[in-house]
Amino acid sequence: MSKRKPLILITNDDGYQAKGIASLIEAMKGLGEIIVFAPDSHRSGMSSAISTSQALRAWMYHKEEDLTAYMCNGTPVDCVKLALNEFTERKPDLLVSGINHGSNAGISVLYSGTMGAAIEGCVFEVPSIGFSLCDFNNDADFAATAGVARRLAEKVLAEGLPAGICLNVNVPIGEIKGVKMTTQTNGKWVNEYYRSNDGAGGDVFWMTGNFENWEADNEDNDEWALANGYAAVVPVKIDMTAYDFMPELKKWEI
Amino acid sequence: MSKRKPLILITNDDGYQAKGIASLIEAMKGLGEIIVFAPDSHRSGMSSAISTSQALRAWMYHKEEDLTAYMCNGTPVDCVKLALNEFTERKPDLLVSGINHGSNAGISVLYSGTMGAAIEGCVFEVPSIGFSLCDFNNDADFAATAGVARRLAEKVLAEGLPAGICLNVNVPIGEIKGVKMTTQTNGKWVNEYYRSNDGAGGDVFWMTGNFENWEADNEDNDEWALANGYAAVVPVKIDMTAYDFMPELKKWEI
Repeated sequence: MSKRKPLILITNDDGYQAKGIASLIEAMKGLGEIIVFAPDSHRSGMSSAISTSQALRAWMYHKEEDLTAYMCNGTPVDCVKLALNEFTERKPDLLVSGINHGSNAGISVLYSGTMGAAIEGCVFEVPSIGFSLCDFNNDADFAATAGVARRLAEKVLAEGLPAGICLNVNVPIGEIKGVKMTTQTNGKWVNEYYRSNDGAGGDVFWMTGNFENWEADNEDNDEWALANGYAAVVPVKIDMTAYDFMPELKKWEI
Repeated sequence: MSKRKPLILITNDDGYQAKGIASLIEAMKGLGEIIVFAPDSHRSGMSSAISTSQALRAWMYHKEEDLTAYMCNGTPVDCVKLALNEFTERKPDLLVSGINHGSNAGISVLYSGTMGAAIEGCVFEVPSIGFSLCDFNNDADFAATAGVARRLAEKVLAEGLPAGICLNVNVPIGEIKGVKMTTQTNGKWVNEYYRSNDGAGGDVFWMTGNFENWEADNEDNDEWALANGYAAVVPVKIDMTAYDFMPELKKWEI
């Protein structure tokens, strides 16, 4: 009897119709049995949000050999949770999320629905990777990112990832010089709102902004890699405990 | 000329009408000038979600000496971002979020809107603390948690917190034996959905579940502290890089 094929769960945050997830599905074909479980529409910026008071539904919208695809009315994390609780009969060998339309480097890992899904796969002890291309266009060229995704997926299927660690992969536009393993760039978004009005005198605020890099001279981080033509791979921990501060904190009398 | 009073930003994820935020506002009174900037309704489980395609609005709903309160139609992180970008003329000395109705211990830090707000404060380099009481009731007794919040706020106003680190504080129901500094408990939620139907033959799934503790014998983590009658304070890092895995990862050829 032959060994079962690896099971690969694919999701994203741009919705099941995005070009990015289509590219990722193509990149994974041949590596195993694929289940797609993706939001029914755009859920960008959803982080690790979950639907606590809305009923979730899922609809199968495509089936072919080694590929079953569902859409779901929830967030990216809802998709991962619902797929793994109710729609898979065995634990996947790999979760891949994306390819996101736009960067999730630096502090954006906190807000990213693409990475929310990868982090959730990691919570389920499934080796998980989020992929993003630094291009917001609907018709962006995902070829280079798909190549990186294929090679990383093969590597992780062969070797796994340590418990509690997933990967955040960002790829610059155009040809890439290579792949660098990096840290999460320290910095933040600034000038985050465009003030407009609702036509009746009320102020409204639209999200905008630019990333302020607080360590532009650090050649070991993801923003440096991207600015210099490399794909950036950050290993992301789901245990957020600041162990270094613990000895000091334990001295506090509260 | 006297020194300006400390500025304290208060938010939550249960919405501006929740008893928990009212208790937290009372607990902070007298410590400085207070700005409340809270969601206009329940935004539980919103994590670090941001509104990328919806216009935000804010309405002042209360003003008294040293207290100005706004509600906002966004997520907890939207509230923090909008307050700090557009509604404060100086950087706050402290951000407190909560008091949440329900635990945000262990892995729940990932999904928590309460902690999403505290983490966002930390991104802005504001010393930030999220508070949660392990009681989902609307009329929960927040007295003990408010006491812990007051003492921790005084401590953090006096001494600050290291850059990139905020605090996740969970408090058990009833009298507390004391306050323990702890790690984030390793474990996950299981049996996460209740399957129901929509009356027309379609399956729908409602979030439910129970927390499975993978290190129940570790007396240093937040679930142990809570189970044993202590408030638990976890220092939370916003740099999620898994530095320990970096040397191994750098050997990968992709």
